[in-house]
Amino acid sequence: MRRTRFDDAFCPIARVTDLLGDWWTPLVLRDAMYGITKFEDFQQELGVSRAVLSARLVRLVDEGLLDKIPYQDRPVRHEYVLTEKGRAAGDVLAAMWRFGEDHMWEGDDQPLVELASRTTGEQVRPLVVDEATGERVELDRLKLRRRR
Amino acid sequence: MRRTRFDDAFCPIARVTDLLGDWWTPLVLRDAMYGITKFEDFQQELGVSRAVLSARLVRLVDEGLLDKIPYQDRPVRHEYVLTEKGRAAGDVLAAMWRFGEDHMWEGDDQPLVELASRTTGEQVRPLVVDEATGERVELDRLKLRRRR
Repeated sequence: MRRTRFDDAFCPIARVTDLLGDWWTPLVLRDAMYGITKFEDFQQELGVSRAVLSARLVRLVDEGLLDKIPYQDRPVRHEYVLTEKGRAAGDVLAAMWRFGEDHMWEGDDQPLVELASRTTGEQVRPLVVDEATGERVELDRLKLRRRR
Repeated sequence: MRRTRFDDAFCPIARVTDLLGDWWTPLVLRDAMYGITKFEDFQQELGVSRAVLSARLVRLVDEGLLDKIPYQDRPVRHEYVLTEKGRAAGDVLAAMWRFGEDHMWEGDDQPLVELASRTTGEQVRPLVVDEATGERVELDRLKLRRRR
């Protein structure tokens, strides 16, 4: 079953859906953010089949979010390291974290974990703002227009 | 084929992947942000099958991102309106927009469209920051810890 592809879509959201909407991919990226680099470690962490994990890693390398780097000669072994583009995708994951933390637990339930700064130890709550004004982005109050 | 579900995962990113990783769902939500409310209009805009669209709308209603509201009696017709939770999911889409706009076009290519404020007319570039400090979030420099 091949899904409709959106990677040539005019809309940035659609292109990113094409990439991150590939089931498991956000979780592979998340674990890369947490410092996992080796196939076996991703597999153990995620409990995903080797075939699916392999397909996701190939796609993330093809799309330039991960570099595949040999770290051992005999036998050859590779590790997967985030590129600058891959690190930038962390912003999408951070926004997912915030939305999930605020809205995906019911009633008094709360996630067991939180994000915290490694330097200050303070909790970190990601927020999406307009880069120019620092104000919250409210997508339904924006308009689309042809780029100038 | 039922995919592995993540909706009871401990991690907010995983729960959101379960919801938004459902192919097409981010695009349905996006169009809701742009003011589309009617089944026929979603279908025409997205070019998706009625069965898939219907499944996605049911899920978004079940998860509380859209309200299904009757707007006509005979015959009964419904429209789909964003809830507060649905509007909050707009932050994830906004982060996807920014990542896509910066990283999903190659070379000198650029997206044809941009986001702009309806009030000031200025371009809007979403950015993910730490709510407390206003500094950029760098997920790979944060740590996970048990919530206090």
